[in-house]
Amino acid sequence: MKVFAAQINPTIGYLEGNTRKILAAIERAKHRKADIVLFPELTISGYFPDDLLLDESFIDACAQKLEEILPATGGLFVCVGLPRRNPEGKEKFLYNSVAVCADGKLLGYKNKTLLPTYDVFDERRYFEPGTEEPIWEYLGHRIAVTICEDVWQHSNTVGYTHYRTDPVLELKKERPDLLLNLSGSPYYFNRKDVRLSVFQTVAKTLGCPVVLCNQVGVNDQLVFDGHSCYLNEKGEMVQIAKGFAEDDLVIDLNTHACPCRLPENGIADLYSALVLGVRDYLHKQGFKRGMVGLSGGIDSALVACIAKEALGAENVLCVGLPSRYSSPGSVFDAEELAKKLSVEFRLISIDLIFQSYLDLLEPMFRGCPFDATEENLQSRIRGMILMAFSNKEGYILLNTGNKSEMAMGYATLYGDMAGGLGVLHDVTKLHIYQLAAYVNAKEEIIPQAIIDKIPSAELKENQTDFDTLPPYEILDPVIEDYIENRLAPEEIARKRNLGLETVRDIVRKIHLAEYKRRQAPIGLRVTQKAFSKGRYVPIVQKWR
Amino acid sequence: MKVFAAQINPTIGYLEGNTRKILAAIERAKHRKADIVLFPELTISGYFPDDLLLDESFIDACAQKLEEILPATGGLFVCVGLPRRNPEGKEKFLYNSVAVCADGKLLGYKNKTLLPTYDVFDERRYFEPGTEEPIWEYLGHRIAVTICEDVWQHSNTVGYTHYRTDPVLELKKERPDLLLNLSGSPYYFNRKDVRLSVFQTVAKTLGCPVVLCNQVGVNDQLVFDGHSCYLNEKGEMVQIAKGFAEDDLVIDLNTHACPCRLPENGIADLYSALVLGVRDYLHKQGFKRGMVGLSGGIDSALVACIAKEALGAENVLCVGLPSRYSSPGSVFDAEELAKKLSVEFRLISIDLIFQSYLDLLEPMFRGCPFDATEENLQSRIRGMILMAFSNKEGYILLNTGNKSEMAMGYATLYGDMAGGLGVLHDVTKLHIYQLAAYVNAKEEIIPQAIIDKIPSAELKENQTDFDTLPPYEILDPVIEDYIENRLAPEEIARKRNLGLETVRDIVRKIHLAEYKRRQAPIGLRVTQKAFSKGRYVPIVQKWR
Repeated sequence: MKVFAAQINPTIGYLEGNTRKILAAIERAKHRKADIVLFPELTISGYFPDDLLLDESFIDACAQKLEEILPATGGLFVCVGLPRRNPEGKEKFLYNSVAVCADGKLLGYKNKTLLPTYDVFDERRYFEPGTEEPIWEYLGHRIAVTICEDVWQHSNTVGYTHYRTDPVLELKKERPDLLLNLSGSPYYFNRKDVRLSVFQTVAKTLGCPVVLCNQVGVNDQLVFDGHSCYLNEKGEMVQIAKGFAEDDLVIDLNTHACPCRLPENGIADLYSALVLGVRDYLHKQGFKRGMVGLSGGIDSALVACIAKEALGAENVLCVGLPSRYSSPGSVFDAEELAKKLSVEFRLISIDLIFQSYLDLLEPMFRGCPFDATEENLQSRIRGMILMAFSNKEGYILLNTGNKSEMAMGYATLYGDMAGGLGVLHDVTKLHIYQLAAYVNAKEEIIPQAIIDKIPSAELKENQTDFDTLPPYEILDPVIEDYIENRLAPEEIARKRNLGLETVRDIVRKIHLAEYKRRQAPIGLRVTQKAFSKGRYVPIVQKWR
Repeated sequence: MKVFAAQINPTIGYLEGNTRKILAAIERAKHRKADIVLFPELTISGYFPDDLLLDESFIDACAQKLEEILPATGGLFVCVGLPRRNPEGKEKFLYNSVAVCADGKLLGYKNKTLLPTYDVFDERRYFEPGTEEPIWEYLGHRIAVTICEDVWQHSNTVGYTHYRTDPVLELKKERPDLLLNLSGSPYYFNRKDVRLSVFQTVAKTLGCPVVLCNQVGVNDQLVFDGHSCYLNEKGEMVQIAKGFAEDDLVIDLNTHACPCRLPENGIADLYSALVLGVRDYLHKQGFKRGMVGLSGGIDSALVACIAKEALGAENVLCVGLPSRYSSPGSVFDAEELAKKLSVEFRLISIDLIFQSYLDLLEPMFRGCPFDATEENLQSRIRGMILMAFSNKEGYILLNTGNKSEMAMGYATLYGDMAGGLGVLHDVTKLHIYQLAAYVNAKEEIIPQAIIDKIPSAELKENQTDFDTLPPYEILDPVIEDYIENRLAPEEIARKRNLGLETVRDIVRKIHLAEYKRRQAPIGLRVTQKAFSKGRYVPIVQKWR
C-alpha cells in the first residue's frame, strides 16, 4: 500500500492552474505505483479564497473542476479539497470539503468539522461545520480523512477556542488503520515542532499511521511551509517533505522504515520563509523584478540578500539615496553590499530636492524648529524616487521596515513605509541580527560595518534609534509578550522585570501607531501574531 | 409605564467615559420618571471592540463597570450591554450579553443568540451563541430583551446566513407584552427603511410594542446612525430618535400616540453620515483640525464642505497645489470655494519641485515617454506638502478619493491616496454629484463651474477621467452590482444591457487595484459593501 502526498503550491482562485497541478500529481502518483493520493486543504481553490467564496459562480466552477479530475482517479483512492454548497442551506451556505474519489467515481464528501475562526482564520464566515467522521474502505483498509483543524483540538493546542467535539475521539471508535489529513497550515517561527507534536498525539491515540499533506507557497501575508509528513502508528516521524518548496512524499506503508528526526533550524526556516515570501508574492502576480532602497543599515541589507536569493541578482535593483545627514560609511557600505550581491546599484543624492522643499515651505514654517516634519520630508523624497523607478521600470519596491519599528510607529508614512510587500514587517530587530549572522555564516556578504553600526534613521545630525526607542533588548520581548502572547502590561512587567511605566508606554505607542500600520503594504506573517492579517484592533480606542 | 432609550455615542474601550454616559443617562431617565432604561449593544465597551475582547483584563474591567452601574438602578429596570465570560468555557470563551438589572440588583443575563459573522461583523470570532430567550417580569409586564441580530432572522433580511433558530418565534410562545432591542446597527445608504421593516415584522408577530435602542457615532470605518425608535403593537412607528446625534427617546406606553412617518431623505442622511464621520473620527482621537487639498474638482470641494460642517470653519485649512497642467479655472474655483466657506486657503505651486524631480531623474529616464510615472510624481509632491502641514501644524489630512476611483485604482499611492480618513471612499461619483446638489440646494456654496467641469486629474495636457475610465453612468452601476450586490459579470451585463467585455474589464481592474486599496487610509463605510472593512479579497488571485 503506497500513499502519495502531493505538496503543491496553488494560486488562490486559479482553478485552471491548480487543476493542472492536481492532474499532473495524479500522473506522477500513478507512475510511482501509489494507491492513495492526497492533496492540501481546499486544493482546487487554494487556501484561503476569502470572499471569492461568496461568488456563486466560483463554487460552481470548483465543482466543475472536480468533474474534470474524477476520470483521472482510475485505480486510485484520491482526496482533493474544495469548497461546495451545504445542501441543507443552514446556517452557512458552504462546506469546506474533501471529495473522496476512487476508481473514477466520487465516493462522497468529508466536511471539515472544526472551523478555525480566530487569528488569521475566518472559516465560520463562510462554512458550516461538518457533523460526521466517516471511515472510507479501500483495498481492505479503513481510512479516516480529516481536514487540518479537525485533529488539533485533540492535543489542546488551539488557542481562542475549545471545540465541543473532538473528531479524533469520534474516529477512534471506528478503529481506522490510516489517517489522512489535508492541511492549509501556515508557517510561523518554530511552528513545525508544534505541528509535529499534534500529529504525534493523533497517531498515538489512534494507533495507526498518519499522513499529513500541507500546502506550500505564499498567499498574500501567509507563508505555507509544506513540511508534509508521515508518522507511524507509534507516532514516530518516518518521512518529511521539503519545507518551502513543492514536493511529492511517496510512502510505502508496508516497509518498516526508521524514524527520522525533525530538522532543527528556526532561523534557517525563517530565512527560507522570507525568501519564498518575496518570490511567490512577486511571481504569482507576474512580476520578476524587485527593488530595495539601501540605507546602509542592517534591515535593508538583509532585504537585499533575501531579494537576490528569491529573484536572482539580475532582477534586483538597489538604490542608495543619501542626504546631508547620511554618514559616508552608510553610502560606502551600501555600495559594498551591492557589489557582494552582484546586483545593480544606483546612487542618487536627495539633497537638492530636500532643499527645494525647505525653500518652498520656508515662508510658512519660518521660526519653527526642525522636527519630524523635516525628517519625514527626507524619507518621503526617498519613497518618491523609488516609486518613480517602480512606475517607470516595473520593479516592485520591497519594503524594509521591521516589526519593532512597525510596533512603535517609528517609520514615515509614504516614505520608508512605501512599497509592495513588507518583507520584515513581522521580524523584530533582534531576529534581524540573527538572520544577518545566518546570511554571513559561510562568507561575509553583509559588510560587518553594517551589522556593527548603531541603528539610525540618519534623518538629522547624530541621530540614533535610541533617541526615540528603548533598547531592542527591552522592546522586542515586550512586543512579543503583548502581541504574540497577549499578556497584560502588568504581567509583562513582572515576567520581564521591567518598570510598569516602561511597558505601558510601549503598549500605548503600539496602539497609537495603529493608523500608520493600516496604510502599510501587506507584510509577510512569520510569527504567531503579526500586525497585519489576524489582528483586528480599532484605530480609535481608549483602552490602552 | 415609561421607557427611556438612551441613544449614546460610546468610544471603543473607553470604559470610564462610557460608564459616565450610562450613569448620566440613568439620572436623566429618573428625572423623566422612566421605569425602564435601555442602551445600545455592548454599551460598556462600545460596539465593536474587536481583539480588545481577547484581553482578559478588558473583560474583567467591563464586569467591574457593571458593578459601578448596579447601585444606580434603584427603582428602575435597566438593560446594559457588555461582553462577559462564557462560564461553560466552550466553544468560544465569551458571550455578547445584556445585563438585566432592576432595583439595584442583577436579575440575570440575556446572551445574544444570533451572532453575525459576515460583512463587517465578526462576532463568532469571539462569542458563543446564547441558547435561551428568557422573559423578564417587571411591574406586571412580561419583557423580552433581545440583542440586534436576534430579531433579524425573523424577516429573512439577513444575507450570507440562514440561522437555524428564530428567537422571535421562541419568544412568541412566551407572549411578552414588550420587546426591547439593544443594537449596534451601522448605517448604510437607505438602511433606515430596511431596519424599520424588520422591527415592524417583529412587532406584528408578537403583537406587542417594540423599542429599539441603537448606537450612534463613528468607530473607525463604521458610522452608526442612531434612529432608535418605538413601534406600537400593530407595527406602526410612533416615535423615532434623532439620526447621527445622541438622543433620549422617552416613551409613554400608556398614552395612545399617532403613528409617525419615517423621514425620507437618502442623500441628506448620507451627508449627515459623512459629517458625523469626519467629526467623530477626529474628535475621538483628540484632533480638532482637518485639511483638504483643493484641486478645483468636485470631490475635494465636497470634502471641504463636509469638513467645515464637521469641524467649524476655523478648524479647516484648504490648500491649492497647482502645477503646469492645472487650468487657471481650477485655482480660481478652489479659491472661490474657500471664500464661500470662510476657511483658510493657501496656494502653493508645485512646479519648481516637479521640475527638480524631472531634472534629477532625467539621466535615468532619458528617452522614455511621459507616462504614469510623471503623473504620479505630481500627485505625490502634493501629498508630501500636505503631509508637511499635517506634521508641522497638527491637521489631519482628509482624503478626497471617491469609490469609483478607488474601485479602478485611478489614484496615486502616497499621492492623492494620502491622508488620515477617506471621507468619500464609499461614495460613487454619481452620488457625489447628488451630494453637491444637496449642499447647494439653498445657496450656491460649491461654485457651479466646479460642478460643471469635466472631471480631470489634471496631471497632463488635456487629460480627462474618461481617457482612462468608462463614463460614470456605466462604471458606477457596475461597481454597485459587483461589489454591493455580488452579481457575476454575466448577470451585470444582462441586467445593465452592457457588453460582457466592458463589464469584465471593469471587474478585472477592480481586482488589480486591490493592492493599492490596502494602503489607503481607512474610509467611512456608507453602502452595503465598502472596499474597506467587511470585504476580504486576496490581493494575489486569478479568479477575476
